[in-house]
Amino acid sequence: MTTRTETDSLGTIEIPEDRLWGPQTERARRLFAIGSERFPPLFIKAVGLQKWAAAEANAHLGELPQHIADPIRQAANEIIAGQRDEEFPLPIWQTGSGTQTNMNANEVISNRANQILGHPLGARQPVHPNDHVNRGQSSNDSFPTMMHLAAAQAVEERLKPALATLAESLGARATEWSEVVKIGRTHLMDAVPVTLGGEFATYARQVLLGIARLDATMPRLLQLPQGGTAAGTGLNRHPDFDRVFCEVVATRSSIAFTPNPDKSEGMAAHDALLELHGAMNTIAASLMKIANDIRLLGSGPRAGISELLVPEDGLSSSIMPGKTNPTQCEALTMVCAQVMGNQTIVTIGASQGHLELNVYKPVIINAVLQSATLLADAAVSFAHNMVDKLEMNAARIADNLAKSLMLATALNPHIGYDRAVAIAKLALHEDLTLRQAALRLGSVSAEDFDAWVKPEAMLKPGTGLPGS
Amino acid sequence: MTTRTETDSLGTIEIPEDRLWGPQTERARRLFAIGSERFPPLFIKAVGLQKWAAAEANAHLGELPQHIADPIRQAANEIIAGQRDEEFPLPIWQTGSGTQTNMNANEVISNRANQILGHPLGARQPVHPNDHVNRGQSSNDSFPTMMHLAAAQAVEERLKPALATLAESLGARATEWSEVVKIGRTHLMDAVPVTLGGEFATYARQVLLGIARLDATMPRLLQLPQGGTAAGTGLNRHPDFDRVFCEVVATRSSIAFTPNPDKSEGMAAHDALLELHGAMNTIAASLMKIANDIRLLGSGPRAGISELLVPEDGLSSSIMPGKTNPTQCEALTMVCAQVMGNQTIVTIGASQGHLELNVYKPVIINAVLQSATLLADAAVSFAHNMVDKLEMNAARIADNLAKSLMLATALNPHIGYDRAVAIAKLALHEDLTLRQAALRLGSVSAEDFDAWVKPEAMLKPGTGLPGS
Amino acid sequence: MTTRTETDSLGTIEIPEDRLWGPQTERARRLFAIGSERFPPLFIKAVGLQKWAAAEANAHLGELPQHIADPIRQAANEIIAGQRDEEFPLPIWQTGSGTQTNMNANEVISNRANQILGHPLGARQPVHPNDHVNRGQSSNDSFPTMMHLAAAQAVEERLKPALATLAESLGARATEWSEVVKIGRTHLMDAVPVTLGGEFATYARQVLLGIARLDATMPRLLQLPQGGTAAGTGLNRHPDFDRVFCEVVATRSSIAFTPNPDKSEGMAAHDALLELHGAMNTIAASLMKIANDIRLLGSGPRAGISELLVPEDGLSSSIMPGKTNPTQCEALTMVCAQVMGNQTIVTIGASQGHLELNVYKPVIINAVLQSATLLADAAVSFAHNMVDKLEMNAARIADNLAKSLMLATALNPHIGYDRAVAIAKLALHEDLTLRQAALRLGSVSAEDFDAWVKPEAMLKPGTGLPGS
Amino acid sequence: MTTRTETDSLGTIEIPEDRLWGPQTERARRLFAIGSERFPPLFIKAVGLQKWAAAEANAHLGELPQHIADPIRQAANEIIAGQRDEEFPLPIWQTGSGTQTNMNANEVISNRANQILGHPLGARQPVHPNDHVNRGQSSNDSFPTMMHLAAAQAVEERLKPALATLAESLGARATEWSEVVKIGRTHLMDAVPVTLGGEFATYARQVLLGIARLDATMPRLLQLPQGGTAAGTGLNRHPDFDRVFCEVVATRSSIAFTPNPDKSEGMAAHDALLELHGAMNTIAASLMKIANDIRLLGSGPRAGISELLVPEDGLSSSIMPGKTNPTQCEALTMVCAQVMGNQTIVTIGASQGHLELNVYKPVIINAVLQSATLLADAAVSFAHNMVDKLEMNAARIADNLAKSLMLATALNPHIGYDRAVAIAKLALHEDLTLRQAALRLGSVSAEDFDAWVKPEAMLKPGTGLPGS
Repeated sequence: MTTRTETDSLGTIEIPEDRLWGPQTERARRLFAIGSERFPPLFIKAVGLQKWAAAEANAHLGELPQHIADPIRQAANEIIAGQRDEEFPLPIWQTGSGTQTNMNANEVISNRANQILGHPLGARQPVHPNDHVNRGQSSNDSFPTMMHLAAAQAVEERLKPALATLAESLGARATEWSEVVKIGRTHLMDAVPVTLGGEFATYARQVLLGIARLDATMPRLLQLPQGGTAAGTGLNRHPDFDRVFCEVVATRSSIAFTPNPDKSEGMAAHDALLELHGAMNTIAASLMKIANDIRLLGSGPRAGISELLVPEDGLSSSIMPGKTNPTQCEALTMVCAQVMGNQTIVTIGASQGHLELNVYKPVIINAVLQSATLLADAAVSFAHNMVDKLEMNAARIADNLAKSLMLATALNPHIGYDRAVAIAKLALHEDLTLRQAALRLGSVSAEDFDAWVKPEAMLKPGTGLPGS
Repeated sequence: MTTRTETDSLGTIEIPEDRLWGPQTERARRLFAIGSERFPPLFIKAVGLQKWAAAEANAHLGELPQHIADPIRQAANEIIAGQRDEEFPLPIWQTGSGTQTNMNANEVISNRANQILGHPLGARQPVHPNDHVNRGQSSNDSFPTMMHLAAAQAVEERLKPALATLAESLGARATEWSEVVKIGRTHLMDAVPVTLGGEFATYARQVLLGIARLDATMPRLLQLPQGGTAAGTGLNRHPDFDRVFCEVVATRSSIAFTPNPDKSEGMAAHDALLELHGAMNTIAASLMKIANDIRLLGSGPRAGISELLVPEDGLSSSIMPGKTNPTQCEALTMVCAQVMGNQTIVTIGASQGHLELNVYKPVIINAVLQSATLLADAAVSFAHNMVDKLEMNAARIADNLAKSLMLATALNPHIGYDRAVAIAKLALHEDLTLRQAALRLGSVSAEDFDAWVKPEAMLKPGTGLPGS
Repeated sequence: MTTRTETDSLGTIEIPEDRLWGPQTERARRLFAIGSERFPPLFIKAVGLQKWAAAEANAHLGELPQHIADPIRQAANEIIAGQRDEEFPLPIWQTGSGTQTNMNANEVISNRANQILGHPLGARQPVHPNDHVNRGQSSNDSFPTMMHLAAAQAVEERLKPALATLAESLGARATEWSEVVKIGRTHLMDAVPVTLGGEFATYARQVLLGIARLDATMPRLLQLPQGGTAAGTGLNRHPDFDRVFCEVVATRSSIAFTPNPDKSEGMAAHDALLELHGAMNTIAASLMKIANDIRLLGSGPRAGISELLVPEDGLSSSIMPGKTNPTQCEALTMVCAQVMGNQTIVTIGASQGHLELNVYKPVIINAVLQSATLLADAAVSFAHNMVDKLEMNAARIADNLAKSLMLATALNPHIGYDRAVAIAKLALHEDLTLRQAALRLGSVSAEDFDAWVKPEAMLKPGTGLPGS
Repeated sequence: MTTRTETDSLGTIEIPEDRLWGPQTERARRLFAIGSERFPPLFIKAVGLQKWAAAEANAHLGELPQHIADPIRQAANEIIAGQRDEEFPLPIWQTGSGTQTNMNANEVISNRANQILGHPLGARQPVHPNDHVNRGQSSNDSFPTMMHLAAAQAVEERLKPALATLAESLGARATEWSEVVKIGRTHLMDAVPVTLGGEFATYARQVLLGIARLDATMPRLLQLPQGGTAAGTGLNRHPDFDRVFCEVVATRSSIAFTPNPDKSEGMAAHDALLELHGAMNTIAASLMKIANDIRLLGSGPRAGISELLVPEDGLSSSIMPGKTNPTQCEALTMVCAQVMGNQTIVTIGASQGHLELNVYKPVIINAVLQSATLLADAAVSFAHNMVDKLEMNAARIADNLAKSLMLATALNPHIGYDRAVAIAKLALHEDLTLRQAALRLGSVSAEDFDAWVKPEAMLKPGTGLPGS
């Protein structure tokens, strides 16, 4: 590998000849030979956006001349477009402030800007990584700003649309099956009737409430610490830099970012990201419930509940011929477990800041973005490959309903709870139908029984009450 | 122990003679000899409130005659007043629907109501535990309603006021110390100046944002599943029961409870409580940061940072004479660790519902209420016993600031980052002041140095910039 | 309330007249008005044991005269016997070193010892709380020693016997049902046959391995930090104090405690307790699996899997008459969720020590003891109230097995996987038996089918292979 | 992209022409468009090893003819050698049994084996993916076997050597600094003296105990479920397959794998992997403590504790010139946070098996391997880039020690605790040395003070006691 020799204020180092990164990146690359986890493209895009917006704001405020700002913006736009992903070689496991990745961006952009201007890589002029690309900034405010940008974009562009897709799929089945009366189950035991559509309506509502939960955290997430510079005070930046930065980034992203009135709060702590993750953790719990229910209802095909038929997806057991499994439920619940673990990571990371800086930034944003994108991908996959393709097993549903002893509940208002218990117990122990048991005990006439015990009438309030 | 013999639909059992509970409670007491954890008084109060409101609503709707409703309300009010706590002997570790505690309430109230009406304990008439006290209800909707009531009351009456107290204490110090310039620290290393007041202002803001986070979850928490009865459908209750129930409970509690439009969502899942806990978990992270910072700044008294002096609280080491420790920080951070663990509990519990019912209700509400009350108590204790009594160590603050090398940051806009590095490095390695190092390197004149490097001028944007 | 006035080196304070505690305890009681959580009796017993053993060792080594040691031992024995529980009023949420509880013990014992010797409470002589009861000790080594003592006793005396009970119950069913062939399920879908006894044998093995897991952590848990005194060095104690202390405590407890060769390791960190909790967390996962399986197999009674019949325990739904629920499974899985949350607590607490001391001691030991005792209680309750009373539903088991399509797996070695797939698919889609489908496709003769597809022959290796 | 058309028992599909995978893999690739997480090379190597050993064992037992077994072993060896990583395109988020990755291996190996034998890709003969490569196996036993193989290899080959490296580095500093007396700190407050070497000896011991913790879990981890086939019974495999498999894999890996006597235990549950992760979680807690301590002792350089000097690593702040940060501590503590989150993932995953199968296998092994490799990498990086390069700041250490008030502890045995308190309090409040305060109070003579208060004599038991 051919290299070029580059020097900065901290020494001289060999860098692979064609790479746009510089000495800080190269040193970090060697110092942090830890793991294979890298920032996802979604984050690198936010890195580009932050650098672009900083140059834009500085140029607007007269802090950068246009001939310097122009190539910086061009280089930043290349990053936003995904053309420079390979220039960001550093792992998550680096300085906890993300400084090396911020410097990586400063170096890549200054090198690329100088290249655009006809200067060699490593020249450090006319565009300087710190003095120009990092103008009016510190890693300590820029990196958390990138975190907020990336998280907000992941939520708005990936997670919310994906949840909407899933809610729509669930809602469609809710409508389709709204009249399908089936046995309900509480404690996994036979209970009073519900509708299959009602079950799916509840799932759809859980998912929609998930979107509301995300939205409820936005007021804190959209406040950016940009402008805090080194320790939250704003040293070395233009007084209006924070405001203008937020304006340009809000315009470009169509997300209503505003300046955090207390920059230090967004640098020393990451409560906003933890709050967001709490919402995603709640969504994970919702989705785990939904996926578990569907695999339970789809269990079988013959010796399970089998009220739903899971789609044959062309995958099979490696030994049991012709076996169909609820594979999408499994993928989704594994994603949920991952998100729940990420909750612990973000909690620990967010709680462990010291004084003016939290130094768990990379691990926090990595977990947040992983949760957002996994939930998004898994929700869409589950919608299309599972929910949309489910079929109901009408025969089994009817059979299960017909056998139920819990229809006895409809007798309570008429004969009282204690006598209804006696009927149900007799039916269970003697293997009778409820009607047989009721008549044998004489607590109710055949006519009354037939009038009172109607599954369809048990699906809403009031209909079975005496006098109604 | 003298006992009375009582019989219900499931059999006959001996019950301690004077206890108000009945056979279901007594059986459960024997079947669940697990642990010593009991529902807190805060929850039992909500149990009473739910039963009172149900009787009130049923009476209003003509579902209960007044002569039945009256003693039920009176008995429920005794529970609300804390007079019946000892009648709730069941552990958290019971049926996961909380059915036994709901039945415990039904039995205590019916027995007490019958007692009021001059009937013996165990008569099961004229007031029947299921047919009257539990009228139009199931454990499956009543118990989660109690959960929402208790959680909302804990937040509104305990946690939010406590956080407001802490924010006020922190804010007072922020104001008092707003002009105290001190060294900032990032990565625990000396950084550019900040103010001591600014540090406390950030803490106060974190706490106030915590209140906002709680508020953001309320739209879901205040929706009550009451009215879902057995499986979410509303079987056996009056069509208007849910609406009237919420009206009376909202009026009495002054909290704007409304009916959950999808009752099943609040019975089969507990996303709303997990979402709430996510907010409390975020608050725990905030408070852990604050407590850690204060013990760090208060470390010493001689060989630590010692910019703050922690109060002498009259406690001491059992072996090291005269030692003063940041005991309130320790109590608070232990509380935060507990809350973070509770987050895992609620996450697991909330994700594991099956079909029409989540059966982790007791463990969920126990964790939620423990988190709310511990955070509340610890916040108030920390405010009064730590924040209000802190003193600053002005001499140490001034000394630490004077020595700082990071004042070199103010030189960046004037001489560029690379030359500023050289000055700081020289000062560090030769044990010089920054000024000495700068002059020796000749990068700046004495006059310029004095004009540019002023800690007081480094505390806000723009002031140190060339041309400003 | 009448009080006595007491003075120590840090001031004067009023103490309830008859209480044995002293000024440090009283101050702490006022300073930590946080929560209602108190150390469990199991821990207070270990507090007494530690103080008894310290007095014993000091007396043996000539560090305490017998006339001082004697009443100290007597007072400590009263604590061990559970007679002084009410003298320990302090919450978990105190100093993170547990110093206040250690001082609480020192004060109670010195007061009680002086009382025995005919001196008034508060005399602080002839027996002094620090100079005699705390002789050669610090809270910093005594409190973690109490933690290890209590944890080891909880494991040895409570948890391991409880798990052995559960394993025995499970093992008994394994033996009883070893010949009951039933359908297996993977992915919750019908799979090849297993035996009901085999399922319970696996559960029993999981529980027994849990005991092995506990044992594997003992080498670290049984090393006591006693003797480290203030910062691990052993200042102010007799050179042989650690050794003699461990000898007397090992003899009395019948647990092989030994001195930690690096006292500081057991004071500054609590890795040994976290390691232990990791084993208990694993046990919680095992028990959650077992409880989930049993409620799944017991689901029904008519519209579920219903291969097991859960015991009628005399508890019921408050609205659905005659409903029997797997309440013990629910209590147990809630306990497991609690233990999993405790794992997060202990992890955070154990990781957050600073230099010579970890100050999350009370929250750590509280979680460890809660996990140990809850798992123990729940395991025994589950054994007696669920496992011992389960019945199998032979008719349903036979029916489910007969319908299974996965018996086709036995055809693989004879006709190849691909042709076996075709048979199973045809049977499913045309609602045929496997035999019908196989014959229709002509892949196998009726004679071969009957010879190859025998559920009983599918239960062990080799029997179905060609040539076997 | 050119494709080939391939058909299996479940249909026909287009596959990229040159890829070795087959229809099951291709379908899964399309069905699970979730995330970017892939199994690490470490795991793919274990996949190859499992398939190699299965072919070896089957050939040995006469279950595969050599002309089939030979190319299978060759193809498997190519996987072990890392030459086929790109043929495993499936994400973690797939079927929870890992079936698709097992089938991926079966397809890659059969295609490659057929290619070696001169047959085209997709021929499915003479080597068939299920009938030959998967001979006597199911995904349900093969995949968890791969999990155990990969985890054990990660521990033995990566994590334990890395921890040994770190322990050695820490131990070297312990020896080097064993005579450096410094102030100890408890509650972050000044305490009695310790040695710098002693602090590092404790760190080294923590790390060595970590290795012991890993070893303690091995008895369960080394038991392989191979041989359980579809549901733990061993259907369709040779009676000796499990034994021979373990023999060949143990020989090749030099790790003492043995057959799990209850195969189902290793398929339906993953307690052994959770137990292992509990040990790694404990190691994470140890390392977090160590890293936190070092950054605390290294805080400064001027306004912190600064008893250690963290190495200048050539990285710097993007705004504060010349700032050196404890970057390796930050990388390491972020890794620890990740491991603690992974603990939650593995706990949830391991607890959620159903009946004969746990379907959280991929997410469990992914977390386990991530924890093992991250801890390993970070430990080595920390050893070489931080521990080996630390310098002590002798002047600061001496200065901090000299000022300490807690040397008063040495007076306890001579003048009693209460009088020692008075001395320390006076010194603190009047800013005196301890000696000045002691003399002013007259509690001790100058001669005695000098004889009793010697930091060097406070470092071990007994030396300061009266009479010693």
